Amino acid sequence: MMTKAHLVEQIKKKRSFLCIGLDVDLEKIPKDLLSKEDPIFEFNKQIIDSTHHLAVAYKPNTAFYEAYGIKGWRSLRKTIEYLNNNYPEIFTIADAKRGDIGNTSTRYAKAFLEDLNFDSITVAPYMGRDSVEPFLAFENKFTILLALTSNKGGLDFQTLTFDNDALYKTVLKKSLTYKNAQNLMFVVGATRPEYFKEIRKIVPDHFLLVPGVGAQGGSLQDVCKFGLNDEIGLLVNSSRGIIYASNDQDFAQKAKEKAFVLQQEMQQILINI
Amino acid sequence: MMTKAHLVEQIKKKRSFLCIGLDVDLEKIPKDLLSKEDPIFEFNKQIIDSTHHLAVAYKPNTAFYEAYGIKGWRSLRKTIEYLNNNYPEIFTIADAKRGDIGNTSTRYAKAFLEDLNFDSITVAPYMGRDSVEPFLAFENKFTILLALTSNKGGLDFQTLTFDNDALYKTVLKKSLTYKNAQNLMFVVGATRPEYFKEIRKIVPDHFLLVPGVGAQGGSLQDVCKFGLNDEIGLLVNSSRGIIYASNDQDFAQKAKEKAFVLQQEMQQILINI
Repeated sequence: MMTKAHLVEQIKKKRSFLCIGLDVDLEKIPKDLLSKEDPIFEFNKQIIDSTHHLAVAYKPNTAFYEAYGIKGWRSLRKTIEYLNNNYPEIFTIADAKRGDIGNTSTRYAKAFLEDLNFDSITVAPYMGRDSVEPFLAFENKFTILLALTSNKGGLDFQTLTFDNDALYKTVLKKSLTYKNAQNLMFVVGATRPEYFKEIRKIVPDHFLLVPGVGAQGGSLQDVCKFGLNDEIGLLVNSSRGIIYASNDQDFAQKAKEKAFVLQQEMQQILINI
Repeated sequence: MMTKAHLVEQIKKKRSFLCIGLDVDLEKIPKDLLSKEDPIFEFNKQIIDSTHHLAVAYKPNTAFYEAYGIKGWRSLRKTIEYLNNNYPEIFTIADAKRGDIGNTSTRYAKAFLEDLNFDSITVAPYMGRDSVEPFLAFENKFTILLALTSNKGGLDFQTLTFDNDALYKTVLKKSLTYKNAQNLMFVVGATRPEYFKEIRKIVPDHFLLVPGVGAQGGSLQDVCKFGLNDEIGLLVNSSRGIIYASNDQDFAQKAKEKAFVLQQEMQQILINI
């Protein structure tokens, strides 16, 4: 069970709001892991063991596991079980970007929040209220709604102005009227620091999950300038920049070093607020 | 391999543009199937065997399989393999509503279009061009983009107006500029017949996948009035209305009867155009 208060406490304790993305690609991991029974899990386990003191959250993107079919799903299950059993203080995110009509969203919610027992799941907003509320119905679980994504295509629709408001703002505002809106968090890309001020006007208290630092080019300082709130309110994700710091036997050590650099930067920022 | 011409040929041959949704819920299927080794696959197999001459497409919604974890994914794989091996003329749709940044969408595309070998996948548009194009890159495969969905929440954002255009229209128009746009189809809910005329002005030639007939209350006649084009251009889906026509041992027979009613209605419509 993970409450918002518990998450904030962990951030303060570790002086870190780092989330590590576990987007495992068999072509990028050290070759000697490929002979293991479950190379993906083995990779994740070593990454987690060497970085867990520097990060408060881990975020496997489900696409990377689905790509390997049933074997991939088995690796995902082993990874979340490993996290829940060994590091129960860690906030876990299923980066699944799901969303469907009500009875179908309920199935996704049960799969990820109940069966796999993630603390949270990312959800796409296009289908509206009854596609999101089934996820919000789970107590002490979080629904992380896509608001403004880090990719180039994020500007295709999200920043267009509909009825005097950009679509991402309308998504933020409308979602606050959904039942159990206190269980919402929002995805806002680090590549869009100029938008954080406006976003914080609409959702001052909710946590933001911020991908796009590192490989995608976003800056931690820029994000924090307007993104931080009284309870920190940010989870900043890095995936490739950490987990593929080396593709040799020292990968876990190198990942730790990369995570440490980010954690130190975060610690400095937290001291100054 | 399934081309558009092949799909149209099948529709004309079967005098049907029926798609059957394989949204299998273990609580709704006949009790005596539960003792089988793979009840979900057994259910699907019997539904497919008894309805394949009346339908041109089958659409498993992935949520219903993910809900059962690894066992569910095994059932999904067996179902698509059964379809591809025994009924290669059938158009298969992974109703997955995926979409993510470019490199991640590529993983989803490979999982569903290459590994599982579905003919098509449903995709959510919120993240824009680079989240959709990785799916479109697969030759003789189709990307079915959510445009106007059948659920109540579909009106939360999709019909908001931007520069005099509703969001769903902007999605349609912009997606036509995506690379390999010829591989697009669109989801348009049967519960919104009044929108089909406008939609056909923007996408006169593309196929529309139409859920919402039956349990959700949409009318086949209303959909066809403005939805049909010179190459038919419609796949009308029914899930619960067909597969749960009976929860007794006669479920496959009853499903056939329900599918036959829809096929007959479609045949009548096709004669009149």
